[in-house]
Amino acid sequence: MIIVLRPDATREQIDHIVERVKGLGLSVHISKGKERTILGVIGDESVLEGLPLEVLPGVEKVMPILKPYKLVSREFRREDTVIDVDGIKIGGRQVQIIAGPCSIETKELLFDAAKKVKKAGARFLRGGAFKPRTSPYAFQGLGEEGLKYLAEAKKKTGMPVVTEIMDPRDLDIIYQHTDIIQIGARNMQNFRLLTEVGRVDKPVLLKRGLSATLKEFLMSAEYIAAEGNHKIILCERGIRTFETSVRNTLDLSAIPVIKEETHLPVIVDPSHAVGRWGMVAPMAKAAIAAGADGLMIEVHSDPENALCDGAQSLQPDKFAVLMKELKKIAEAVGRKM
Amino acid sequence: MIIVLRPDATREQIDHIVERVKGLGLSVHISKGKERTILGVIGDESVLEGLPLEVLPGVEKVMPILKPYKLVSREFRREDTVIDVDGIKIGGRQVQIIAGPCSIETKELLFDAAKKVKKAGARFLRGGAFKPRTSPYAFQGLGEEGLKYLAEAKKKTGMPVVTEIMDPRDLDIIYQHTDIIQIGARNMQNFRLLTEVGRVDKPVLLKRGLSATLKEFLMSAEYIAAEGNHKIILCERGIRTFETSVRNTLDLSAIPVIKEETHLPVIVDPSHAVGRWGMVAPMAKAAIAAGADGLMIEVHSDPENALCDGAQSLQPDKFAVLMKELKKIAEAVGRKM
Amino acid sequence: MIIVLRPDATREQIDHIVERVKGLGLSVHISKGKERTILGVIGDESVLEGLPLEVLPGVEKVMPILKPYKLVSREFRREDTVIDVDGIKIGGRQVQIIAGPCSIETKELLFDAAKKVKKAGARFLRGGAFKPRTSPYAFQGLGEEGLKYLAEAKKKTGMPVVTEIMDPRDLDIIYQHTDIIQIGARNMQNFRLLTEVGRVDKPVLLKRGLSATLKEFLMSAEYIAAEGNHKIILCERGIRTFETSVRNTLDLSAIPVIKEETHLPVIVDPSHAVGRWGMVAPMAKAAIAAGADGLMIEVHSDPENALCDGAQSLQPDKFAVLMKELKKIAEAVGRKM
Amino acid sequence: MIIVLRPDATREQIDHIVERVKGLGLSVHISKGKERTILGVIGDESVLEGLPLEVLPGVEKVMPILKPYKLVSREFRREDTVIDVDGIKIGGRQVQIIAGPCSIETKELLFDAAKKVKKAGARFLRGGAFKPRTSPYAFQGLGEEGLKYLAEAKKKTGMPVVTEIMDPRDLDIIYQHTDIIQIGARNMQNFRLLTEVGRVDKPVLLKRGLSATLKEFLMSAEYIAAEGNHKIILCERGIRTFETSVRNTLDLSAIPVIKEETHLPVIVDPSHAVGRWGMVAPMAKAAIAAGADGLMIEVHSDPENALCDGAQSLQPDKFAVLMKELKKIAEAVGRKM
Repeated sequence: MIIVLRPDATREQIDHIVERVKGLGLSVHISKGKERTILGVIGDESVLEGLPLEVLPGVEKVMPILKPYKLVSREFRREDTVIDVDGIKIGGRQVQIIAGPCSIETKELLFDAAKKVKKAGARFLRGGAFKPRTSPYAFQGLGEEGLKYLAEAKKKTGMPVVTEIMDPRDLDIIYQHTDIIQIGARNMQNFRLLTEVGRVDKPVLLKRGLSATLKEFLMSAEYIAAEGNHKIILCERGIRTFETSVRNTLDLSAIPVIKEETHLPVIVDPSHAVGRWGMVAPMAKAAIAAGADGLMIEVHSDPENALCDGAQSLQPDKFAVLMKELKKIAEAVGRKM
Repeated sequence: MIIVLRPDATREQIDHIVERVKGLGLSVHISKGKERTILGVIGDESVLEGLPLEVLPGVEKVMPILKPYKLVSREFRREDTVIDVDGIKIGGRQVQIIAGPCSIETKELLFDAAKKVKKAGARFLRGGAFKPRTSPYAFQGLGEEGLKYLAEAKKKTGMPVVTEIMDPRDLDIIYQHTDIIQIGARNMQNFRLLTEVGRVDKPVLLKRGLSATLKEFLMSAEYIAAEGNHKIILCERGIRTFETSVRNTLDLSAIPVIKEETHLPVIVDPSHAVGRWGMVAPMAKAAIAAGADGLMIEVHSDPENALCDGAQSLQPDKFAVLMKELKKIAEAVGRKM
Repeated sequence: MIIVLRPDATREQIDHIVERVKGLGLSVHISKGKERTILGVIGDESVLEGLPLEVLPGVEKVMPILKPYKLVSREFRREDTVIDVDGIKIGGRQVQIIAGPCSIETKELLFDAAKKVKKAGARFLRGGAFKPRTSPYAFQGLGEEGLKYLAEAKKKTGMPVVTEIMDPRDLDIIYQHTDIIQIGARNMQNFRLLTEVGRVDKPVLLKRGLSATLKEFLMSAEYIAAEGNHKIILCERGIRTFETSVRNTLDLSAIPVIKEETHLPVIVDPSHAVGRWGMVAPMAKAAIAAGADGLMIEVHSDPENALCDGAQSLQPDKFAVLMKELKKIAEAVGRKM
Repeated sequence: MIIVLRPDATREQIDHIVERVKGLGLSVHISKGKERTILGVIGDESVLEGLPLEVLPGVEKVMPILKPYKLVSREFRREDTVIDVDGIKIGGRQVQIIAGPCSIETKELLFDAAKKVKKAGARFLRGGAFKPRTSPYAFQGLGEEGLKYLAEAKKKTGMPVVTEIMDPRDLDIIYQHTDIIQIGARNMQNFRLLTEVGRVDKPVLLKRGLSATLKEFLMSAEYIAAEGNHKIILCERGIRTFETSVRNTLDLSAIPVIKEETHLPVIVDPSHAVGRWGMVAPMAKAAIAAGADGLMIEVHSDPENALCDGAQSLQPDKFAVLMKELKKIAEAVGRKM
């Protein structure tokens, strides 16, 4: 950690700062420049975590040197983490596609979607039983009943399933019925929920919050890892910006940054990002070209009547066409589907 | 609701759209303009909630006419809501100051802060027992022990207290020890938590999420109100923007917008917004000048050693000076403290 | 245009609004809903341009129906605009790569870069002679001397050249030495400059401003088209968001939106967006996968010593490798390079 | 400047970096920490300006220690700059109000507004002759004719005037007719224009760009100062964020930051920020409470018929009421009007 002193810092102020830092078992190196004096703090930076060095008189700014995340960092583990779900690998050479309806509405619609996305090449089925909705008056999901349909769809198709958790009290029931537990964008900093899913042994699909920096995103992954669960799949799904022509701005530069900073797999959800089915295909292709390890795509057999996010859902036949195009892109970047 | 048709919408497409809307019990008025045909939908717009009209072939865009929130809207209730806590009124002519440490660290520090902020004129004591922290390695709060100290501080000083809830499982214990239940910025769209606090009879202080639009903020208040709890205090605490010289950008224009759109009281937390104690005073004054019903300010007797957010905490003597200045501003805008 | 009235709008207010609108030669249709009365304005909406209908008493909000841009819109011209520069077509099936140094520094460096990017398959050479720099103390470009080197590089290699204009007073000299005139992001709303380049007969490469909505971007293109110059190439180059791990957030969803809204070609500048050469390649590939008509990439033979933006410049050998990868992506989406 | 090395930086890489830095006449101090080695660069940091140290192999990140602006910084000059215009002081104890129409439309409307704002206590008259408009089809201002009306209004009322420059070619004519030259938000990084107004001897009112960081804002002021003109008035006018209920988000925390970082006066334009006249008053009061040295407010005698920004213009009687309220706020913060 570097502490930059104010140009008018007094001798007493500097002594006080040095004493404080040394009191924490760290050593300090003082370097007097032409315009500023800086203090280089040597030792385990984490003991300074949360200590408000900025309030010490004479301090102009404090600049951390180290990354705040450890277990999820590339430094902690150099090789890519590959997560195995029923023999299907996420984070390896194969690009994985998770597809299905936004929310589970009826058993028939779910089974129909499951059958069709499987046929088109998807390897995971998604479906929401507990839905976070901006309005209290909107459809909130089928709850436990939906989970049962999902488990049944798995039995029928053999596809592992992904569903979202919103409340720590639902963990037991969700754990029983799903293969991957999803934490949605709005709960990325629901730290209690992160802690709970960190204690189970199923993979967690963690979505980036819509105004989360990548650093915060990785800190949320660190919350899960710190509890012992290292099977974390990161998911970029668009961030909030000033642009309104699409629902969110898909931040594809997150992919190379995440690949550089961590060893975890990263997938992309183009459906929630753009919010319009007509733009899902170009963004899906771009995501794979940028190096994503997979995609999560909403598919609904009857978008016109969908109870949730119909505007962004692809019809199964359009999805099948897209899958063929994605295969070509995957191959163009040296991967397979 | 207005449905704007694409310039190339066919007769069949238009008939299909009209049929769909009529099928929901609404009537439709067709208006052919020079460049576009538009459909005016008449009736209860809420039955269209979530229906993806945009996916119907021939539709260019859909423009809602009505506000999505009802119970919290100024239309639903024209007079200002005034919330009475132990005889102290929030939302009336008096501007209320909530002060205290970010987190409860020791009994002594809490009592000391309580005594001093009361002496300076604050009427509510704040203190966090459960703390949402970006890092899993940072101090997470004293939990139940902290709640007990808080209740004790209330007994000693007579000041009603405010503390944050992060998890629905903590509701009972928090309910017992606090007068106002706070929902933090990161949980503004934790819909399960909103639903739970909507079912109790204590006031809820709801903070705006750091990337929440005011519309979303009011929808979250609607979640609470929809369950029956109308005692909601809104709190602006800074939004995330591109600017990095302060922690968040305090959006004071939220105050007049909220006053126009709702009947609920609105307060401001300048400490979390700016993140630096030296800038709390100007922003606190500006908030009252802009019409805020109160402020929430962090005060710590020993910021240098605070375990959380020390950099933004005022020392008690600085807080006392600020309170005198705030009184003048309150009077300049026709209010009292 | 739709005018939504306040629920408490009086008879007199409504009459006044209707009278004002009719006074402009438009007709009005009144539609009384359950909760709101709305006025549908029929006729040429543009006569209302800039008229503050919102200030009329009784008006709640005004919702325009039509797009504010005309000449550049897909409605005005259904087929894609293809721009021919010395026989090379931008906007057609072939994806075009513009490459070269950020700024022209020496004749030797420019010629070296030109030769190498040509060999690797680039068809246009870029190079800045007038450089917009955040700091007045940074290198501002070689000016006219740089333009001459650029023209010479064209002669040597046969590649058409692109350079930026910052000041209307430089138009004559720039016009003489370049094939495509670039308007940089910071000048996207320098309306005088737009007007001036709208009056010449050379193609204009218009970069999106870093906080410009796509609507504003297209309105700036409309400025150029309104003066008669329809040879406009749009360029997405990253927008400003809260994320700081890359310089700007590349908004690739801009590509399908622009393709839907306009008939103009759109290219992407990944170098300025990410600001780090190591991330140029994945973003370049993603851009083509998303449907871009071309790319603008910074290449410098000696990035370590570059006077401008060295951190984001590719070395020629890395660029050559990238070009091979881009070719595969282009083919995967049915295009060629 | 601090250079943080990658954990895997080799001996050769470190030597190369040290050699490069020393070659520029700087000295380097190497400090080996537990997890990272860092290089502290000692000497005149500005020689590194623009040099891409990040591209040197082995470098993880580069952290500048010094502020990039010099002449405008508080370090360069500790006392507040007070700008005297015809005996009226901007930046002193007196808060100054600049008022008038957005654009000059007719002689009569301008004179009427001038007379009324003067009577209400404003000391400067504003009026635009050259108007930057998003649409090429909107009213672009009266140009030179408008400037003449403005000069005439000054003669009649004795109030100094402020008008905007958009094009360096207009400098002579604008210089003749105005007392303060305004650079609008869209031209904050029109570096040629900044350089030109830096060469004249009249005060410049520089508006913050709508996505400019405060650091960039001060760098633009530095451009003006670097040419010799130190009479710079900074103006916060709202920034672009995700919030759409107001036109822009007024960033009042900019005031204390600017006061800390520079010696220049800072004023606020609440009219452009909020875009709705009903919200101008609370924001104007908040700005003065936060420490602004003045305000710029749009006043139009007939907003309903204004050719530009009528929605945000106050009528003269409402402005007069506001002025009385502002006086009270100014006194509450120890200033006068």
